[in-house]
Amino acid sequence: MKQIAIIGAGGLTGQEFIRLLVNHDGLELVHITSDKLAGKTLSEAFPGLLSKTNLTFQTHSAEIPPEALVVLAVPNQAALDMVPELLQKGHRVLDLSGAYRLHDEEQFTKYYSLQHTSFFLMEQVVFGMPELFRKDLQGARFVSNPGCYATSVILPLYLLGELREELKAKVVVDSKSGVSGAGGRTEDAGFSFNGVYENFRAYKILKHQHYPEMLEYSRVGMQREFLGLVFTPHLLPLYRGILSTFVLQFARDITGSDLQKIRQRCDAEPFVRFYDTPEEIRLDHVQNTNFLDLSLRVEGDTMVIVSALDNLQKGAAGQALQNINLMLGMEETKGLKFT
Amino acid sequence: MKQIAIIGAGGLTGQEFIRLLVNHDGLELVHITSDKLAGKTLSEAFPGLLSKTNLTFQTHSAEIPPEALVVLAVPNQAALDMVPELLQKGHRVLDLSGAYRLHDEEQFTKYYSLQHTSFFLMEQVVFGMPELFRKDLQGARFVSNPGCYATSVILPLYLLGELREELKAKVVVDSKSGVSGAGGRTEDAGFSFNGVYENFRAYKILKHQHYPEMLEYSRVGMQREFLGLVFTPHLLPLYRGILSTFVLQFARDITGSDLQKIRQRCDAEPFVRFYDTPEEIRLDHVQNTNFLDLSLRVEGDTMVIVSALDNLQKGAAGQALQNINLMLGMEETKGLKFT
Amino acid sequence: MKQIAIIGAGGLTGQEFIRLLVNHDGLELVHITSDKLAGKTLSEAFPGLLSKTNLTFQTHSAEIPPEALVVLAVPNQAALDMVPELLQKGHRVLDLSGAYRLHDEEQFTKYYSLQHTSFFLMEQVVFGMPELFRKDLQGARFVSNPGCYATSVILPLYLLGELREELKAKVVVDSKSGVSGAGGRTEDAGFSFNGVYENFRAYKILKHQHYPEMLEYSRVGMQREFLGLVFTPHLLPLYRGILSTFVLQFARDITGSDLQKIRQRCDAEPFVRFYDTPEEIRLDHVQNTNFLDLSLRVEGDTMVIVSALDNLQKGAAGQALQNINLMLGMEETKGLKFT
Amino acid sequence: MKQIAIIGAGGLTGQEFIRLLVNHDGLELVHITSDKLAGKTLSEAFPGLLSKTNLTFQTHSAEIPPEALVVLAVPNQAALDMVPELLQKGHRVLDLSGAYRLHDEEQFTKYYSLQHTSFFLMEQVVFGMPELFRKDLQGARFVSNPGCYATSVILPLYLLGELREELKAKVVVDSKSGVSGAGGRTEDAGFSFNGVYENFRAYKILKHQHYPEMLEYSRVGMQREFLGLVFTPHLLPLYRGILSTFVLQFARDITGSDLQKIRQRCDAEPFVRFYDTPEEIRLDHVQNTNFLDLSLRVEGDTMVIVSALDNLQKGAAGQALQNINLMLGMEETKGLKFT
Repeated sequence: MKQIAIIGAGGLTGQEFIRLLVNHDGLELVHITSDKLAGKTLSEAFPGLLSKTNLTFQTHSAEIPPEALVVLAVPNQAALDMVPELLQKGHRVLDLSGAYRLHDEEQFTKYYSLQHTSFFLMEQVVFGMPELFRKDLQGARFVSNPGCYATSVILPLYLLGELREELKAKVVVDSKSGVSGAGGRTEDAGFSFNGVYENFRAYKILKHQHYPEMLEYSRVGMQREFLGLVFTPHLLPLYRGILSTFVLQFARDITGSDLQKIRQRCDAEPFVRFYDTPEEIRLDHVQNTNFLDLSLRVEGDTMVIVSALDNLQKGAAGQALQNINLMLGMEETKGLKFT
Repeated sequence: MKQIAIIGAGGLTGQEFIRLLVNHDGLELVHITSDKLAGKTLSEAFPGLLSKTNLTFQTHSAEIPPEALVVLAVPNQAALDMVPELLQKGHRVLDLSGAYRLHDEEQFTKYYSLQHTSFFLMEQVVFGMPELFRKDLQGARFVSNPGCYATSVILPLYLLGELREELKAKVVVDSKSGVSGAGGRTEDAGFSFNGVYENFRAYKILKHQHYPEMLEYSRVGMQREFLGLVFTPHLLPLYRGILSTFVLQFARDITGSDLQKIRQRCDAEPFVRFYDTPEEIRLDHVQNTNFLDLSLRVEGDTMVIVSALDNLQKGAAGQALQNINLMLGMEETKGLKFT
Repeated sequence: MKQIAIIGAGGLTGQEFIRLLVNHDGLELVHITSDKLAGKTLSEAFPGLLSKTNLTFQTHSAEIPPEALVVLAVPNQAALDMVPELLQKGHRVLDLSGAYRLHDEEQFTKYYSLQHTSFFLMEQVVFGMPELFRKDLQGARFVSNPGCYATSVILPLYLLGELREELKAKVVVDSKSGVSGAGGRTEDAGFSFNGVYENFRAYKILKHQHYPEMLEYSRVGMQREFLGLVFTPHLLPLYRGILSTFVLQFARDITGSDLQKIRQRCDAEPFVRFYDTPEEIRLDHVQNTNFLDLSLRVEGDTMVIVSALDNLQKGAAGQALQNINLMLGMEETKGLKFT
Repeated sequence: MKQIAIIGAGGLTGQEFIRLLVNHDGLELVHITSDKLAGKTLSEAFPGLLSKTNLTFQTHSAEIPPEALVVLAVPNQAALDMVPELLQKGHRVLDLSGAYRLHDEEQFTKYYSLQHTSFFLMEQVVFGMPELFRKDLQGARFVSNPGCYATSVILPLYLLGELREELKAKVVVDSKSGVSGAGGRTEDAGFSFNGVYENFRAYKILKHQHYPEMLEYSRVGMQREFLGLVFTPHLLPLYRGILSTFVLQFARDITGSDLQKIRQRCDAEPFVRFYDTPEEIRLDHVQNTNFLDLSLRVEGDTMVIVSALDNLQKGAAGQALQNINLMLGMEETKGLKFT
């Protein structure tokens, strides 16, 4: 049994991760922290969460068991502050924040409004999307877990493979997320019941902090220049899930052989499902699973892709567990196959 | 007082239209039909709807008062069947269906799966979008009311004016509608509570029947060829409202002067509101109003527009009342200014 | 035209009241205040609210036009502070708060945790439920508008008439309210989307501040002692409406004649509707109307009553307008008949 | 590994049961039927449901493996038809329908509108509520699983123990269920999105088929006569969970010692949780768990209890698994401790 510590375990992603761990028989949760919940047991804090252990929340400053792989579910600045010391102490680290995803420091400063204080770590961090970086993740000591919107966009584009070289215009991506993925603090009026229910809106238009991440990783493996994308996030009046709709313009008509290759690439992945028609892509098919669902329709040189995932699983805690399995030399799908 | 008859008054649009009429002091509702509700009074059928009159529902075959302007809230085939005779009898007609919107008969057959039996009427019908055809609507005898998605797309594009000539690619439009706008029958599993709640999906991808209507009317007033659009509708887990997100690529960078002209065009319209930022465009600002709300953000040659409307008002019954006001020589905004 | 001023017009009840005023042609809104919105126009503050006037919000301390009837939509303590001076200056006052509803000062202190500083006014205030106090309301200078839950409970019991004398046990009332009636501040985690959606709970069990109000007014007109009631409020994951379910145990079996009298009493009231079966009582029948809907089922000496109302209309702003009509000598139903 | 067959596995309870089985390592699902889904695999039919096996749905008439314990998730009439033969063939049977719960044949006919064709089996069937009948369930061959509302009502009353002897009036129970527990067919207008969302209503008032079941089992273990209960079910605009609010009138004031005993009884049960205050009883604490949560408040001789459970787990499939564990000699909590 390998040990896991979660710093910042009181948030939505932390809870989801704990929920996943109880069905994983190779990992043992040994340490959880939350300044707000310090002193409470897991079952006192979250009656809806049944846990194998009955751990008590510690404060963030409590000592972490030395053997534990540390999962950071803390704000960006806190991750910047904590990672160097954790690595130095010999912990393996999986960071759920956005602090170590971008290799362009200027973009980081622009989109996160923060100064990066340990940018040298960008040379060793691995971006935690197994479909792109599986080999690098095996045995990795420091992994940065992707953003939820970013996963929903990067992965479908990557699965297009060499067809991306034929794009003749910016990819247009319109994404819609449930409240648990939109990152709002409970106290914001924008996330009150009255502000979300029977309502819908776009936000952070041309400004979302996941945009540079999409830009960097959507072109992984491409030879030609990637023309970029226009990304618009929206807030759905529901709890869980992200659905993204892509419109792509190619320099030539799409062929059956193109589609065949995409399908094969999807079929080779344990957590990607390709459907016959894009109308079958629905949030209820992915909620509480680690799948990215995907389908598309083509008309000449135009392609519409629809993708869906659970922002708390494949978009956060589920993908984190995939990564941890790889970091620790276990089977990638362990603890993730069954709900 | 001018007389109004509604054929098919038992549906959502019919109810909304009746709700609007009770605050209009120049129109009198004299005749309502519904085969399902025949024999019931308005207040028996809809306890939530307070009505000036206490009309009783007739069957569709009941005789219509000869002076009445007839509002058709019936399926496409029924509208095809009824319009010629109603016009011949001297009624003014406002048709809410899709039967008389397309001047390309082939497109009609393709998207509606129907044979058009009175295509000659396409020469005299006026498309009921006052911002485009105000003069033609004044005194018109036969008006076809636009689709709800179509209004949400055509009107913002029209308000771009001559800037449309600079488009260098297809416009990408991603629309999201509440259940009342998505046209589902109550009995469909897809519109059951369990099928919609905590769920989200796209539908009729590259196949929606409002698409050819958008294509025909989005280019009204253009000199150069319109490059077309890619339209994807989605079903929101809420009741009322449509929000559309547009991505446009221009042949040159957008200037402050371009934006100034768009704003002026919007300000000149009684039912269009232009906002400073696109994040302010929200369904709760337009629900139960006849406004189309609109804003945009620009980055170089790329423009993102967000528009919103109430599908039952500006997308159906409200716009119908605007049209009827014009048909009958009354002030266009009568009965629509106040909720 | 009589003048109306609203102090605290930025809240939900204030907005609803403004919405009602625009369809009332005997009242003119001349003054609105909100410390938070001071300086903004109505349409800037509430794009979803179309208004006849384009008033600008003043601060609470701005001078009120001397002829205006003042509607107070402020917290209890603020109402305690403001009413004596307003009355002294000659304003008619309608108070929406709970400050002047209870004639038992001890109960007031217990349930509101406040000291009453002008309890002498309890001799002259009229409780604003027209069905109980219509005559007293005609021409009244100071009216206290009932609570929303209280209206939903007191009115059905009052309409039982002399049958109340036969009650042999406490009345059990189980009420469920949408978020707009539960009085939560937007910032409370309990009213966040994540705290309300796909959730349900009871609150303030045996402690709700409307309970003593129910106790005082449910027995109006009774000869024998009223045995009391047990009231439990709950929070529904929806926006608008209160549904209350009553179980009553009588000392004898209920007869057809008893029911006939209840029905007659309901039919005599302009804003009460009696239905044939209690399963027809639904929130969607009363939302956006000023009706209290009501029905019941009987088995021997046991009666189950179901009542519903819109907490922002009959439960607040609608009933307030009924009262103001009576205070100013206008027809009670003016401005309230039509949505 | 013991074998399980599910007849009627395509419904909500069937799906939930399959979801539970995949985390249970002593049971193997070997046979699933659904006339509607026959020929599809589990993952084709339910993409949101990850399964250990990839079973294919059979028709109802397909032969059942002889060793399998049979779970019946079929309508009442089908259960009446199938049980005798299944028992005769030697299968253990757990029936989720209402066919074998009532020992009063007259009540059965009245509330289910069916003729009972194998009433002799009522002598051997065990009512599947472990807290009441744990010993009888151990090794039982035929178990009738309780109704979801019934569990929510019977279990809290049973846990009152001898205090029930002091009741001086009928217990009043007001229950509210999400859509998945209210038993509506998808095609009913009453269960359409438009019929449920932003709506609330009571139904089957004094007529619900779970009422006689509550009456029979709420008095288990009582010496004195049980005075009965008044039960009113309501439909919540949400998916999962039942919350019941009880008002009880006792012949004497409740003491701290009474409460202590209730708490002890709750603490002795693996799937009952007693909370300090009834405001903590919330659907989100029980959703996706097998717990019945419970708390109460007392004022003199009056007690208000609030209980909550997940209608698909403790109200159906979860309790069924508790029962099956007991029937097959396994630990009662096996496969149910963790979500």
